[in-house]
Amino acid sequence: MEIQVEKKVLLTGIKPTGIPHLGNYFGAIKPALTMVSDDSYDARLFIADYHSINTIRDPKILKQYVYEVAATWLSCGLDPEKVLLYRQSSVPETLELNTILNAFTAKGLMNRAHAYKAAVDKNREKDKPEDHGINMGLYTYPILMAADILLFDANVVPVGKDQVQHVEMACDIAQAINHNYKSELLTIPSYVIDENTKTIVGMDGRKMSKSYGNAIELFLPEKKLKKTINKIVTNSQEIEEVKDPETCNVFALYKLFATKEQQDKLAKTYRAGGMGWGHAKGELFEVVNAELKPIRDKYYDLMDNKDYIDEVLKKGEAKAREIAAQKILKLRKAIGID
Amino acid sequence: MEIQVEKKVLLTGIKPTGIPHLGNYFGAIKPALTMVSDDSYDARLFIADYHSINTIRDPKILKQYVYEVAATWLSCGLDPEKVLLYRQSSVPETLELNTILNAFTAKGLMNRAHAYKAAVDKNREKDKPEDHGINMGLYTYPILMAADILLFDANVVPVGKDQVQHVEMACDIAQAINHNYKSELLTIPSYVIDENTKTIVGMDGRKMSKSYGNAIELFLPEKKLKKTINKIVTNSQEIEEVKDPETCNVFALYKLFATKEQQDKLAKTYRAGGMGWGHAKGELFEVVNAELKPIRDKYYDLMDNKDYIDEVLKKGEAKAREIAAQKILKLRKAIGID
Repeated sequence: MEIQVEKKVLLTGIKPTGIPHLGNYFGAIKPALTMVSDDSYDARLFIADYHSINTIRDPKILKQYVYEVAATWLSCGLDPEKVLLYRQSSVPETLELNTILNAFTAKGLMNRAHAYKAAVDKNREKDKPEDHGINMGLYTYPILMAADILLFDANVVPVGKDQVQHVEMACDIAQAINHNYKSELLTIPSYVIDENTKTIVGMDGRKMSKSYGNAIELFLPEKKLKKTINKIVTNSQEIEEVKDPETCNVFALYKLFATKEQQDKLAKTYRAGGMGWGHAKGELFEVVNAELKPIRDKYYDLMDNKDYIDEVLKKGEAKAREIAAQKILKLRKAIGID
Repeated sequence: MEIQVEKKVLLTGIKPTGIPHLGNYFGAIKPALTMVSDDSYDARLFIADYHSINTIRDPKILKQYVYEVAATWLSCGLDPEKVLLYRQSSVPETLELNTILNAFTAKGLMNRAHAYKAAVDKNREKDKPEDHGINMGLYTYPILMAADILLFDANVVPVGKDQVQHVEMACDIAQAINHNYKSELLTIPSYVIDENTKTIVGMDGRKMSKSYGNAIELFLPEKKLKKTINKIVTNSQEIEEVKDPETCNVFALYKLFATKEQQDKLAKTYRAGGMGWGHAKGELFEVVNAELKPIRDKYYDLMDNKDYIDEVLKKGEAKAREIAAQKILKLRKAIGID
């Protein structure tokens, strides 16, 4: 007799917000790809387009972003045969579950959500009314995220530290529902914080972030990539001076791409003196380009061939809806709406 | 050439909350039936079951209530061939639209909703935290109601005075969306307050209300109806005394059911003296029973034949979803999710 062990469901959502940079690549995409590619999980990854309408109000941009995020993950190595990839909006059952969750979510819980509280604090600092500029999509965001998680019986949700509270809220709401209907209707999820998540240094030495303007985009064409790397901020040491790789932005980025051997070799050159920044930047460009070229080529191929992306997302939709439809039927029965 | 004038859409929702009483019958059901039976409207009437889960947490009770409300309206004369009758939950597109509306609803708007403010006031009076016992279903109720209205392009929404604000909120949210997408995506609804809506006197002379325990249920079996009518509070005048019909609870109810002729005749008997309260109550029972018997018989027939109700609701569902699916498709295209 063979014992079938059901795989744990691992679920991750990605908000479509435009072209990623190296910070996203090392800080989020690569660690997540490692997790979803772990065969011991039944992995699901969705593009959170309905979350995006809270901020992206231009249909063309939203559409473009959805393609970009799909193309990014596919080009970075996501295998859609192994990982279920779908758009949140392909599964309107999510929005039905959202309504059910509403009825079991204390308003007090939402008041304590970090993102909302941060927005309120900002308003207070500016002497504006507490809820100035806050829409209900932002305020109720944790409930929709709970619906994303609970609809698919996720056991494991990899998150950044700022998202831990949201998973905890999903647990609270699910428990309230299970308790009321005296049945394990909803799977209580757990979060995992990826401890390997690193902060990537930007071109000016601060954390790489779009908002700081110090980011290197992941899919820059070769020439632009070279130009951008050449603009990385270095100190004003002369060529002949001995240089410290450990305090250098160029070297910090080099370490992400280079082998141990390459790193040792370049570090030696730094410390020997006689090396100009142009040389270090040239070396950096070589390793960055070597890793990114195949990804970039695949990305632009995919963006030129949206039919393939559509096809992948359509297949994902069919599978995701099948799972979702069963779950929502079960819930409807339990609450007396069937 | 014939000019086709499109009918205006009239939409009403009914929350399933158990067996109605005479106050609901004269104050809500009859006026609404008059409106939805007006052939100049394309009338739609839905059973708001997803609104109910905020308070009704027992699946059996919720199911029973839905049947009761459908049987009530059908037995009171709603013609499902003319009026589109459907359950809110049959149209999950409502819950998708709800999510779209969230993104365009200022949280400040929700803070000003009467029902929420009343709940907060109650908490303050009892020295409890503002949001004590308030769930997100209650708090976001006006958005779901806006989705109910806007999904079906309702032009006219008949409401009680307490619901006017909700229709106004639906207008505000719809305008925000139309403005952002520079298109008349959503129809701006108007409310009508039925001026004929009357306050019905209960058995003790106060407004008839379930919470006062002074209500006469609409579908009481004949014997129970008689017993209940016999318990109506009267003054302690002796038989021989002259009585004033205008200050009498029995007569107030009699006027709702009796013809002008019957009213005049009984009023005369009141004023002539020599009439006991038993006589007046007997007369009241006769007219009440004459009007309610056919409705009551039909109601119990329907409750014994839930298959017919299911069939009506199923037909309604098919038609309602057709309308809803077209609308949501149009909206998805506009926001860039399609």
